[in-house]
Amino acid sequence: MKKINKLCIVGLGLIGGSIGLAARKRKLAREVCGLVRRPESVREARRRGVVDFATLDPVKALAGADMVVIAVTLGATEQIARQIQTHLPEGCIVTDVGSCKQRVIERTQKALGSGVRFVGVHPIAGSEQSGMSAAVADLFDGAPCILTPVRGTDPAALKQVTAFWKALGSRVNVMSPGEHDRIAAAISHLPHFLAVSLVNASVGMLGDEKTVLDYAGSGFRDTTRVAASGAEMWADIAADNAGEMLRAVTALEKQLSALKKALRGKDGDAARALLTRASAVRRKLNAG
Amino acid sequence: MKKINKLCIVGLGLIGGSIGLAARKRKLAREVCGLVRRPESVREARRRGVVDFATLDPVKALAGADMVVIAVTLGATEQIARQIQTHLPEGCIVTDVGSCKQRVIERTQKALGSGVRFVGVHPIAGSEQSGMSAAVADLFDGAPCILTPVRGTDPAALKQVTAFWKALGSRVNVMSPGEHDRIAAAISHLPHFLAVSLVNASVGMLGDEKTVLDYAGSGFRDTTRVAASGAEMWADIAADNAGEMLRAVTALEKQLSALKKALRGKDGDAARALLTRASAVRRKLNAG
Repeated sequence: MKKINKLCIVGLGLIGGSIGLAARKRKLAREVCGLVRRPESVREARRRGVVDFATLDPVKALAGADMVVIAVTLGATEQIARQIQTHLPEGCIVTDVGSCKQRVIERTQKALGSGVRFVGVHPIAGSEQSGMSAAVADLFDGAPCILTPVRGTDPAALKQVTAFWKALGSRVNVMSPGEHDRIAAAISHLPHFLAVSLVNASVGMLGDEKTVLDYAGSGFRDTTRVAASGAEMWADIAADNAGEMLRAVTALEKQLSALKKALRGKDGDAARALLTRASAVRRKLNAG
Repeated sequence: MKKINKLCIVGLGLIGGSIGLAARKRKLAREVCGLVRRPESVREARRRGVVDFATLDPVKALAGADMVVIAVTLGATEQIARQIQTHLPEGCIVTDVGSCKQRVIERTQKALGSGVRFVGVHPIAGSEQSGMSAAVADLFDGAPCILTPVRGTDPAALKQVTAFWKALGSRVNVMSPGEHDRIAAAISHLPHFLAVSLVNASVGMLGDEKTVLDYAGSGFRDTTRVAASGAEMWADIAADNAGEMLRAVTALEKQLSALKKALRGKDGDAARALLTRASAVRRKLNAG
């Protein structure tokens, strides 16, 4: 990778903070700086060594930057792009970390205008925790990271961003924003909203949350873990990727219909077939 | 707890093996023995110290036993009860570990006949692993355990079994088999079949399992973890608890309808409300 001169991370939450820690640890840039909104974040970033320096001042943060990562929530990405736009050095590479790509890329590119080189990125990493306190240097180790160039994406910028995410430890794949959003709906957005639906359904069925909390075993805990995440981020995702998510929910409903048929017919073979198919795939994920 | 003279565990898989390890560690019985079907299990039990002795011989295993735990799969419980019935000492307490209670209790009690005192038990513990190799002494530490007496259950036997499971580390609750099956459908059986449905739906949506395996992040892994379990056990559960499971699937479908409505209407507030409600409950589970 061509060493970055000045890396500026806008937003030092779980993802932004982890990029800072990983980039510093792996010495990917001569200088790593963070642009934040709150004075507490400047202090926390200093205390944890998340960046070389953090500031509230966009001029100071962005002057001389050759790589800028917008690591704010999906819903705030476009607005941040508009705010930092005038401060971005000519030719600077700008990337994001949004969990949906199609809509955010169109809008962010437009907000950034010409003169900077934008590459859409989605690192598939995280946890149900959020904020800088949850940031760790190895968050991206071995995790998938999808880059979504569009017509007009600068090839040299794509190459540099690819090298950057590989250097952060990710397994990088390149695909169109639409293909990304289809995969993300199946692999990430549907699981999240299923966990949410399961928590809400179980409380509804049992009449109160106390019974749920009293008897939840490790199976329930695992299956619903992601539902503890912040609502805002996922409300943004639902809004951005509604079309693909609707298709994903419909696919899930078909599976539930097959299950109901098996249950109604007391058809042990049908239930066993559903279980066996899923088990074979899921075990490969444990092995891999 | 009144110390057990001879505890006999029928079946030394994850649950039976863990009961053996915990009972020995906590010295709950003068003698802990295991009745198994395969010579390899006798050797593995000896090597791991899961019981004081394991045998293939029901006469040797059951002679003098005052507490017998049938720790085989749900589907095999009735059959095992029939097989050991003639060897059970008069007045002996027999319990099971089945994940459904209503049907198995009726059938097992019938198979055992009079002269022994049966108490239905469901320890809510386990993992997606199975077999004696996965057994651990602390499996029941702090885990819920439900006892399901019926009309005719001997009060002294219920008291002794309650004390036994508390001594194993469990949080014991007592309720009817029907109430148990309703809770288990919501808290355990629905989550399992949702994980299964999610794996199958994602493979269906993306066309092949390779894409699923390549891009699955921690969210997908958590949400589907239980789907790696053995199919047989869960096919038994689906057969035994079909009625309650159908009601649970219907409750989940209602949640999915609400989600689709929010997605179709691009209604961020509706999606946010679903997310916020689930998040509040799920976070309590982390805190608790």
